[in-house]
Amino acid sequence: MSSTKPASSTTGDPLLLTPGPLTTSRSVKEAMVHDWGSRDARFIAINRAVLETLPRVILGEGAFVAVPMQGSGTFAIEAMLTSFVPRDGKALVLVNGAYGRRARTILDIAGRASVVYETTEDVPPEPGEIDAMLAADAAITHVFIVHCETTSGIRNPVEAVAAVVERHGRRLLIDAMSAFGALELDAREVAFDAVAASSNKCLQGVPGLGFVLARKSALEATKGNATTLTLDLFDQHQALSSSGQYRFTPPIHVIAALHQALEEFWAEGGTAGRGRRYAENARILIQGMGRLGFRTLLPETLQAPIIVTFRTPEHERFVFQRFYDALRDRGFVIYPGKLTVADTFRVGCIGELHAADMAAFVAAVKDTLLEMGAGLRTAA
Amino acid sequence: MSSTKPASSTTGDPLLLTPGPLTTSRSVKEAMVHDWGSRDARFIAINRAVLETLPRVILGEGAFVAVPMQGSGTFAIEAMLTSFVPRDGKALVLVNGAYGRRARTILDIAGRASVVYETTEDVPPEPGEIDAMLAADAAITHVFIVHCETTSGIRNPVEAVAAVVERHGRRLLIDAMSAFGALELDAREVAFDAVAASSNKCLQGVPGLGFVLARKSALEATKGNATTLTLDLFDQHQALSSSGQYRFTPPIHVIAALHQALEEFWAEGGTAGRGRRYAENARILIQGMGRLGFRTLLPETLQAPIIVTFRTPEHERFVFQRFYDALRDRGFVIYPGKLTVADTFRVGCIGELHAADMAAFVAAVKDTLLEMGAGLRTAA
Repeated sequence: MSSTKPASSTTGDPLLLTPGPLTTSRSVKEAMVHDWGSRDARFIAINRAVLETLPRVILGEGAFVAVPMQGSGTFAIEAMLTSFVPRDGKALVLVNGAYGRRARTILDIAGRASVVYETTEDVPPEPGEIDAMLAADAAITHVFIVHCETTSGIRNPVEAVAAVVERHGRRLLIDAMSAFGALELDAREVAFDAVAASSNKCLQGVPGLGFVLARKSALEATKGNATTLTLDLFDQHQALSSSGQYRFTPPIHVIAALHQALEEFWAEGGTAGRGRRYAENARILIQGMGRLGFRTLLPETLQAPIIVTFRTPEHERFVFQRFYDALRDRGFVIYPGKLTVADTFRVGCIGELHAADMAAFVAAVKDTLLEMGAGLRTAA
Repeated sequence: MSSTKPASSTTGDPLLLTPGPLTTSRSVKEAMVHDWGSRDARFIAINRAVLETLPRVILGEGAFVAVPMQGSGTFAIEAMLTSFVPRDGKALVLVNGAYGRRARTILDIAGRASVVYETTEDVPPEPGEIDAMLAADAAITHVFIVHCETTSGIRNPVEAVAAVVERHGRRLLIDAMSAFGALELDAREVAFDAVAASSNKCLQGVPGLGFVLARKSALEATKGNATTLTLDLFDQHQALSSSGQYRFTPPIHVIAALHQALEEFWAEGGTAGRGRRYAENARILIQGMGRLGFRTLLPETLQAPIIVTFRTPEHERFVFQRFYDALRDRGFVIYPGKLTVADTFRVGCIGELHAADMAAFVAAVKDTLLEMGAGLRTAA
């Protein structure tokens, strides 16, 4: 353990350098120290403000509505897939990690036809390949893509894929879980029917709410598609738009925290401002870790500034669990890898983390390597 | 508006005399002012403590496991019904309010066969009738009952129904949403396969998590039944029991609040202690309102000490919205009725409410009636 004081957030907790749930601001957490009834006018106003501001994140005001979904991001993904892909539809699922694979599983369970185009975890899908698959299979109604695949941290080419899908007259569904609010997605330029994300990633709220931004005209066509009562996006939207009230108890405190988090998001300059901070976090992390001898899985052109996958060093004295625990003692929580292509670990750049936090993290890594006697290239 | 200071909780919020979300203690809300990662050892320990203590509430340690479900109580109900009733099963749904009807809808959407035994909202089901229905229809595999139907506040005869169901070798599923932790349910005496409830009712946590207490042997038989990925109780339990981790991001702050709420629940004496406080709350409410001329929908023998339905007075100057708003100004939030049998409103007795709060509420009602010029029998 280092002799210096461990790093911590303003509430004394370790800093979370993970894909989420993330370190949040103190004000976001303190927004939850209240009681509200779910039919309370104060809560209904908070919720309405949240739902009205979310489409602005994709510049989709007017054309898109925000449909919240209790649970987590995956609940929103399952709601999106089972509401948007009709019983006689067929989805082309782009897979280069766990989240693409999960979408396929959801479709299988729902009895929806699907076909997969899979690339390895460090390779993005080729728009040309998608073009050929759509040309060859007229039954495909929808294409599903993950904006930033958190498995590796790869940025997938949503814009290019959207152009191909639109040219074929098919519909695009996007899982933007870890990208939403950090990577630009302009609904005026990119054609898609729905994008799913959650409260606890780059918007920096707490976990407990997913949401789908749905193109109004497309949402209207989903009536009767859903395979469950709770995950029916059409019904959820109908109830909220007619009465302002949820069909089923909402996670009120999570929504109040998200309301505060969105205020802070806009104050930071929205996606542009937040994306800039995260990109700077990623730059400090990658350069600093590079100086210590760590190599990233992905080339810079494919790396999203969300979470960075590092190859586990081959140094005989580098033991990941010791490394993890020593960093935890210094106030930094990192994340194990889950790649099949290489032995890796991951470090997140998102949440209430700033340049000084990333520099302190790199210093803690240097310190830890020295302690382990596992200095890599230059740590001495 | 009254000249006296409005009633409020320790955080300055109005008191919620509703079916939930409820007024919670300050310490429950303050437990959320932290950051945790979902794989963080501190969070995993908190979650494990919650899951280990929940079966104790029904005296089901050893035989039952707690399977949490992100979302809300209805997510847990849909998870319970779609996981426990197999594709070739058939459910008998006991209906005397909105929550029984909702279970039927869930089964219909899932394509599960069901039959309904419906009584009016102020009438409990007859065990003899259920006996006859089970004898006449061997295809029925499961019976679904709501312990306390929040629509009216009626206490349904779970024990007597369980005995009939067991005698026929069928399985009982219980929606105990508003009763769990306040009305005794002894799994050693009452035969059932699963009971669903949530974080934000009588356990006095915040909303965002449902859970199902499932008999281990019955849960094991549910593999492959579920109609979705997220609401699959078998899978959810498998992941949690093998790694201590959720398959999908949990509502960490909600779970931390529930952990604190359960500490306070046991400190109050568990179901016996809490049920005693609520019964006293209900007594003060019903007697006080009775002195003001209000009549309850239900006779005392059917009334659960959870939420009380009052008939709307016929006095020409009694306008419900004015009554509601005036009480809100005095710091008390009540609930509209949703009965079909009579024009009513509801007042909850649950949450962090004590005898003095209920007496203050009755005084505020008296004050409001005077102000409206709608004195009933004795308010003068």
